Amino acid sequence: MKAAIIMGSDSDFPILKPAADLLKEFGVEIDATVASAHRTPERVREYVLNAEKDDVKVFIVAAGAAAHLAGVVASYTTLPVIGVPINATSLNGLDALLSTVQMPSGVPVATMAVNGAKNAAMMAIEIFAVSDDNLKEKLVKYREKMKADVSKKAERVKAQLE
Amino acid sequence: MKAAIIMGSDSDFPILKPAADLLKEFGVEIDATVASAHRTPERVREYVLNAEKDDVKVFIVAAGAAAHLAGVVASYTTLPVIGVPINATSLNGLDALLSTVQMPSGVPVATMAVNGAKNAAMMAIEIFAVSDDNLKEKLVKYREKMKADVSKKAERVKAQLE
Amino acid sequence: MKAAIIMGSDSDFPILKPAADLLKEFGVEIDATVASAHRTPERVREYVLNAEKDDVKVFIVAAGAAAHLAGVVASYTTLPVIGVPINATSLNGLDALLSTVQMPSGVPVATMAVNGAKNAAMMAIEIFAVSDDNLKEKLVKYREKMKADVSKKAERVKAQLE
Amino acid sequence: MKAAIIMGSDSDFPILKPAADLLKEFGVEIDATVASAHRTPERVREYVLNAEKDDVKVFIVAAGAAAHLAGVVASYTTLPVIGVPINATSLNGLDALLSTVQMPSGVPVATMAVNGAKNAAMMAIEIFAVSDDNLKEKLVKYREKMKADVSKKAERVKAQLE
Amino acid sequence: MKAAIIMGSDSDFPILKPAADLLKEFGVEIDATVASAHRTPERVREYVLNAEKDDVKVFIVAAGAAAHLAGVVASYTTLPVIGVPINATSLNGLDALLSTVQMPSGVPVATMAVNGAKNAAMMAIEIFAVSDDNLKEKLVKYREKMKADVSKKAERVKAQLE
Amino acid sequence: MKAAIIMGSDSDFPILKPAADLLKEFGVEIDATVASAHRTPERVREYVLNAEKDDVKVFIVAAGAAAHLAGVVASYTTLPVIGVPINATSLNGLDALLSTVQMPSGVPVATMAVNGAKNAAMMAIEIFAVSDDNLKEKLVKYREKMKADVSKKAERVKAQLE
Amino acid sequence: MKAAIIMGSDSDFPILKPAADLLKEFGVEIDATVASAHRTPERVREYVLNAEKDDVKVFIVAAGAAAHLAGVVASYTTLPVIGVPINATSLNGLDALLSTVQMPSGVPVATMAVNGAKNAAMMAIEIFAVSDDNLKEKLVKYREKMKADVSKKAERVKAQLE
Amino acid sequence: MKAAIIMGSDSDFPILKPAADLLKEFGVEIDATVASAHRTPERVREYVLNAEKDDVKVFIVAAGAAAHLAGVVASYTTLPVIGVPINATSLNGLDALLSTVQMPSGVPVATMAVNGAKNAAMMAIEIFAVSDDNLKEKLVKYREKMKADVSKKAERVKAQLE
Repeated sequence: MKAAIIMGSDSDFPILKPAADLLKEFGVEIDATVASAHRTPERVREYVLNAEKDDVKVFIVAAGAAAHLAGVVASYTTLPVIGVPINATSLNGLDALLSTVQMPSGVPVATMAVNGAKNAAMMAIEIFAVSDDNLKEKLVKYREKMKADVSKKAERVKAQLE
Repeated sequence: MKAAIIMGSDSDFPILKPAADLLKEFGVEIDATVASAHRTPERVREYVLNAEKDDVKVFIVAAGAAAHLAGVVASYTTLPVIGVPINATSLNGLDALLSTVQMPSGVPVATMAVNGAKNAAMMAIEIFAVSDDNLKEKLVKYREKMKADVSKKAERVKAQLE
Repeated sequence: MKAAIIMGSDSDFPILKPAADLLKEFGVEIDATVASAHRTPERVREYVLNAEKDDVKVFIVAAGAAAHLAGVVASYTTLPVIGVPINATSLNGLDALLSTVQMPSGVPVATMAVNGAKNAAMMAIEIFAVSDDNLKEKLVKYREKMKADVSKKAERVKAQLE
Repeated sequence: MKAAIIMGSDSDFPILKPAADLLKEFGVEIDATVASAHRTPERVREYVLNAEKDDVKVFIVAAGAAAHLAGVVASYTTLPVIGVPINATSLNGLDALLSTVQMPSGVPVATMAVNGAKNAAMMAIEIFAVSDDNLKEKLVKYREKMKADVSKKAERVKAQLE
Repeated sequence: MKAAIIMGSDSDFPILKPAADLLKEFGVEIDATVASAHRTPERVREYVLNAEKDDVKVFIVAAGAAAHLAGVVASYTTLPVIGVPINATSLNGLDALLSTVQMPSGVPVATMAVNGAKNAAMMAIEIFAVSDDNLKEKLVKYREKMKADVSKKAERVKAQLE
Repeated sequence: MKAAIIMGSDSDFPILKPAADLLKEFGVEIDATVASAHRTPERVREYVLNAEKDDVKVFIVAAGAAAHLAGVVASYTTLPVIGVPINATSLNGLDALLSTVQMPSGVPVATMAVNGAKNAAMMAIEIFAVSDDNLKEKLVKYREKMKADVSKKAERVKAQLE
Repeated sequence: MKAAIIMGSDSDFPILKPAADLLKEFGVEIDATVASAHRTPERVREYVLNAEKDDVKVFIVAAGAAAHLAGVVASYTTLPVIGVPINATSLNGLDALLSTVQMPSGVPVATMAVNGAKNAAMMAIEIFAVSDDNLKEKLVKYREKMKADVSKKAERVKAQLE
Repeated sequence: MKAAIIMGSDSDFPILKPAADLLKEFGVEIDATVASAHRTPERVREYVLNAEKDDVKVFIVAAGAAAHLAGVVASYTTLPVIGVPINATSLNGLDALLSTVQMPSGVPVATMAVNGAKNAAMMAIEIFAVSDDNLKEKLVKYREKMKADVSKKAERVKAQLE
């Protein structure tokens, strides 16, 4: 059970890095590549068509501008595709967001926030956890840790503001 | 393995109906309710906290305007939450889209297109199909049918235009 | 020398009709089809890869929502691709416009106004006219006719307003 | 009579600081905390449900991105909730503004400008001043001071420009 | 203790009516008028300067387009001003929303959703309830009723969808 | 001293009619025409270059979509050009507004609200009134009438709401 | 015959400076002040009501955020008011633009581009030039100089690119 | 067979440089100039009217703000006009994009992404390649090179992420 990470450009790498790290932290195996929907359509097609055989069960796809990559990946597979719109142009990521989320009926892309790559990893883990109690348990613990972090910050802020 | 459908208002019913129909067509059991993040926060909380015990494995959550419902549901569960922004105000659904998709790190909502309820059902099925070969097979057939439909339309258009 | 018209959905037909009519009026042969980037990616691919052999020299591609179709067509050809964003969702065509125009470096789509199918035909004719003096002449005459039309309207308005 | 300040993230602290300062300048007691609507829903709920007993009479709530926090606070109380959308993503605070202001009928959030935390404090003071003549007097004086400041600036500008 | 309702144009009347009704339902006395910030600035000024003497304690101000009215009212008073942006132009109320909410530091307007007049009344009641236990009690009951309404709708939807 | 009204399309006529009527009501002579910046550039050029000789002292220019007409007129004259963006496409007039108002340094267009043709006439009258005391007097009276109208509406609303 | 320059905040000074300089270059007398529509409404009112007696014939008004200042000035005068929306918040000046331009029927503001203060001065000069042949002549010369500048730039670019 | 590059301001030069370089790399002759639609309308007109005689076969036109230049060029020629909206104001290029793309029926502009000058050159080459097999061949090779570049990047990313 692998998560495939596809980015439209290697300049998206720093945004995708935390997603890869989170997946590894949860023990999820990953396969990562660069493939452009527009410059390398055959590469995308072959990658997706072969990925299923290679035990990929979910795709995390990040792209900016006219961000077609997640939609193109979704057109070749019935596996869940998680889309990450990247803020890569002067339009602040609104172009990538609308290009990723406004998919037509029949071929969904599970869209995350602009630059929200870490949440894409989280969603992939949640999807795997539907049928993996071990991951489920780790997810619950991760949430507990997030809560504890907020409590600490609250104390610091309270001390400074009041 | 159930999909829970939560809508923020019963006026969203006509948009959610095709989602419920698609899930049934695929043999996925559903549980449906109305619960407002703002008018009935305890109802949402209890529904989500109890849903897991009731074998719910994925949430489909639809809301318009300041569409907080999907995010609130996601705050109470580590199950996948699929959000459907509803076009319910003069702002054409842009308010609901941004309210649903721009989730902070750690708590993702898998966001669909504005009014894209049918795709939410499709995504739920794709998620279940990760560990259910029977559903997987049905998904592949569904795609084939979509392709055949397009071919028929293409012939009709060709005849009319050329 | 043919112009291929590809629409993402047969519901776009009424918007594409005037484009087909204009091309015929100028004596340009057309080939028309329906092909969805997301539902029928192989159909799009095959259509585009075969079109060149079939003497297609320019593509007119119309799609709404997350309008990936023009970009996908452009990824398979070095022929000029003219994109027509269709107003098909609650977001007034802004989604389709940004999805069509914000193409990455290397793979351009010549984008028209939202629903501007007739201008797509006009641009196709202008492109053919670069190497076809007969078409060039017709274009110049067409412009003259547009000018005469405006003059008539101006007289009517002058009479009514002053 | 206290004003509670809740921020969704400690990174919002520099924007909230002037609000806390202004409240203190007016002699209004404050209670400040960090609580995330999505990471710590129970913390938010408990904080709000207990705040009333602790003499909190108004909430100032700041959050960015899919800014659900003010709405979630409002869902648990009938005290006035003042929302401050924070500019925290590439979308310039438009996401937070729409998420905060577009509340459904029955559960209002008094929304301030993007990053307008100081005005949230001012509004809280105005609300308290409805039944507190001492505060009312201070408000009137504060306005007078603002006017005097503008006069001084006007003289300086007049000298430089004319 | 009165709430003053000021609308920029009598065409806003149907949107303000439910606000007036809600205030009456809660037993809050109202004073209502039409006054345009641009066509009748003196009328607005005098109305606001005299309102305080007439026991007005909160302003509900509704306007569309370049919606300056709430800001102008706020410039003449330190009482809480609640602004309702009206959807009155082709720009879907975005013009009125930004004109109402983006107030400069020192002079806040408590902004409601586009056309959210009923919530303006609710906010006025919440403000009065800070120092009026009777109103507070009514507010709590009103919320209970809203909750019961949602429960009934949920049952109806459940019956139809499952 | 004449005001020239130029509209990009005769479909704008119903929006320009009230502008022409207001100018006549104030006794301002008008010259009206249809001229498209894109279809009839020479017609626009000649009209503007000749208008000055014909005693035109101000231009009112209305256009929709990529509304270049006001800017093109301004490029040929140093007379004041008043631009009226027309709501003529799916983008609600935002395209025409930005195309009209965002003029580069050196060549201004005095831009009105979307579809705000009547205010264009009003601005033309204000400009003429700078050097015409008779018009100035009429303007003051017109304002008085507007104020009286608002007073009447206020009474009617007060009677209905309170 | 004077032009009055009113800015909402002294932080707008650097943007208004070129406008003052241009007016002086053309020999137009100016009067400059700072006055906030919201912090100093009486100051704005008195300034505008007195300005006419002081031979002011046109107002240049610059403000950011909920930019009400130009509209408020226009409400007190029938002289031409030229509005300059200032980019002063995270919303890139869109808030100021819509607040300035979307004026209701009867009270126009001649709106310039975001931060387009120099063009406001240019428009003021154009307005004065309607009845001042000396200014008219200077305007024509200024345009000639702009043209010459472009020619020089064109040569430099040609040399570098070809 | 030449491509003419027209930019509205010499400040656009750094964005246009890669376009000129690409055309030269493909052996396409260019003619480059600066001409402002608003400051130098006659210069634009003469340039375009003479360009055809000088063997120009396609125009690449770049402008920011109220970007009328491409539309104005298109109004004088029936040759293909490729428009490049430049991000030159606080509005992030949205003003230039809408001003360039929303052309009325009859006079198309083939619009590229905001700042997408390189793709304008690519589109010009594609247009020439319709009747030039040599260019066609070079285009195909260029695509192959782009593909190889992506493959190399993919390997590097794979090594770093997995």
